[in-house]
Amino acid sequence: MQKHNFNSGPSVLPQEVLTQSAEAILNFNNLGLSILEIGHRTSWFVDVIEEAKLLVKEFMQLGEDHEVLFLQGGATTQFMQVPLNLLGDTETAAYCDNGIWGSKAIKEAKLFGNVNVVASSKDKKHSYIPKEFTVPTDAKYLHYTTNNTVEGTEWHTIPDTTVPLVADMSSDIFSRPMDFNRFGLIYAGAQKNMGAAGVTLVVVKKSLLGTINRKISPILDYQSHIEANSLLNTPPVFAIYVAMLTLRWIKKEGGLAEMEKRAKVRANLFYNTLDSLPLFTPIVAKEDRSLMNATFFLKDEALETAFLDECKQNGMVGIKGHRSVGGLRVSMYNAMPLSSVEALCSLMQYFAISHG
Amino acid sequence: MQKHNFNSGPSVLPQEVLTQSAEAILNFNNLGLSILEIGHRTSWFVDVIEEAKLLVKEFMQLGEDHEVLFLQGGATTQFMQVPLNLLGDTETAAYCDNGIWGSKAIKEAKLFGNVNVVASSKDKKHSYIPKEFTVPTDAKYLHYTTNNTVEGTEWHTIPDTTVPLVADMSSDIFSRPMDFNRFGLIYAGAQKNMGAAGVTLVVVKKSLLGTINRKISPILDYQSHIEANSLLNTPPVFAIYVAMLTLRWIKKEGGLAEMEKRAKVRANLFYNTLDSLPLFTPIVAKEDRSLMNATFFLKDEALETAFLDECKQNGMVGIKGHRSVGGLRVSMYNAMPLSSVEALCSLMQYFAISHG
Repeated sequence: MQKHNFNSGPSVLPQEVLTQSAEAILNFNNLGLSILEIGHRTSWFVDVIEEAKLLVKEFMQLGEDHEVLFLQGGATTQFMQVPLNLLGDTETAAYCDNGIWGSKAIKEAKLFGNVNVVASSKDKKHSYIPKEFTVPTDAKYLHYTTNNTVEGTEWHTIPDTTVPLVADMSSDIFSRPMDFNRFGLIYAGAQKNMGAAGVTLVVVKKSLLGTINRKISPILDYQSHIEANSLLNTPPVFAIYVAMLTLRWIKKEGGLAEMEKRAKVRANLFYNTLDSLPLFTPIVAKEDRSLMNATFFLKDEALETAFLDECKQNGMVGIKGHRSVGGLRVSMYNAMPLSSVEALCSLMQYFAISHG
Repeated sequence: MQKHNFNSGPSVLPQEVLTQSAEAILNFNNLGLSILEIGHRTSWFVDVIEEAKLLVKEFMQLGEDHEVLFLQGGATTQFMQVPLNLLGDTETAAYCDNGIWGSKAIKEAKLFGNVNVVASSKDKKHSYIPKEFTVPTDAKYLHYTTNNTVEGTEWHTIPDTTVPLVADMSSDIFSRPMDFNRFGLIYAGAQKNMGAAGVTLVVVKKSLLGTINRKISPILDYQSHIEANSLLNTPPVFAIYVAMLTLRWIKKEGGLAEMEKRAKVRANLFYNTLDSLPLFTPIVAKEDRSLMNATFFLKDEALETAFLDECKQNGMVGIKGHRSVGGLRVSMYNAMPLSSVEALCSLMQYFAISHG
């Protein structure tokens, strides 16, 4: 049975990336060696990481000011590493509290300096994106989460501020063109739109570094990683390879503009179906709906299990909502085929008729 | 041409682990999904990480006092995370300075507390293991590197001390039975004897934790990872899977006793050949030779390139020494077939005759 993978991350990857990854495990570049067995300082691997970096720079249209790093530890490590590197003990950073991950980032930042929560959607369980808010011009930076995987909201514009922008883009990275040069720091776990779990993309503007006095261990210091070209210690070779293959696939398919086009087609189909069926209730504000993660309830909660069973029987996995929100969630990242969303929408219509 | 992989890490893996890993990328457990696409909180992955933990506990014969964690960031991250978690600002830890990685661990520890270097082999470029030294009984712990990948030395006994032992076992983990219960903390990057790059094994005795007052970010706090069962955030799913397969392979082949037997056969063959050929000069003290990494020079340095060319032409890779030591290095981890060492020894004999 064909599987439809609606996982929130780790999640669906392009079939050709999977095929190429499996091939590289058996025989990388026809070397007679596995990608798992080659040294990270060989020209073979340096070519991989350099190609990945170039693709990131190309997609983001970055100049010399920005450095591209491939680190370990996921976005959760970045919640700590960002303030550790950028926020002095007596300085203040502005944070948007608009989702579970943003809240975690705030908690971490408080270990290092002052935090000014300038915008929050906590009053309505993070079901919308805050619109009217002011960022003090002396804030060290403004941190926000561009897409909220758990709640299903997404920022469709970049906050208007003059302070450096720091963004967690884990769940919508490379799903749309953006003015990436407006950001001082961007980070993203790879396991949603750009690869497998085990590597984290960090893009940092060099002028933001070296502005605080704290002693930082080299392994947590962006500057050391820049100087070592992401090879300060053994990097997650295979995860970087899969990210490179996924970036290559994005380019071949037509780049970020094409990814956005596909995301809109998928999301429109899904949300239109959702809105047309009174059996289902969307959770988030219409104008703030994420193109990546759609959250919803069944009007009659008792039907949830029956619906999930139906999904399972039809090879649809990953639809249960995050434990903190409940209900249901459908994730539709870059590699999600339209046919999977079509299959799900048909099932929803069929389910609505049978249980309406 | 068959390759002989003498890489120092990432390095040779068992062929069946490669085959199984490639299969799991195309279709994991016959689910119709890739191991790269499944959620880390699914029962499918929880089964993987639990099996890996159980195998570690079995190999190490650990009781309830020790916890097994799978973290990210490599041993270099542990150089920082160990003193961050265990060493108070005014406390003193004892360290052995017997190799390049141990020296780095010392540098990191100094950021957090006092370091007493109780044993050093720096006087002879770390070419031997210090034997006679005293560890103050009030040291918080004694840190040492069981096997020095770069220099080619290995501790063949456990230091005799009453203070908690902390060991970096990155390059000889699971290559021999040891009294693992004597250790307070053990860490090891997976990419030599137990898998691919991207995951780090940490085994910690619970009673060692919670003894200092420092505020620690949860992502760097062993206690948080213990409470979250290594699922505090998205773990490196595939790297943990490959580690589990490698551990399974070790067990199937006969466990640590068998690994040690094979290591001795390989190393004896190699060192006997080395000692029999005056063209080659071993680097380290005979009694401290590593069973994993053998370092040596060519008596006539000018022949080095010719020797490396000969190796390359015969499919032997990874033999160039680390840049800090120079010369040549042969790494022979768990998965290294005896036939590769035999092929190398034949080549050395042939080379000695042609250039003797």
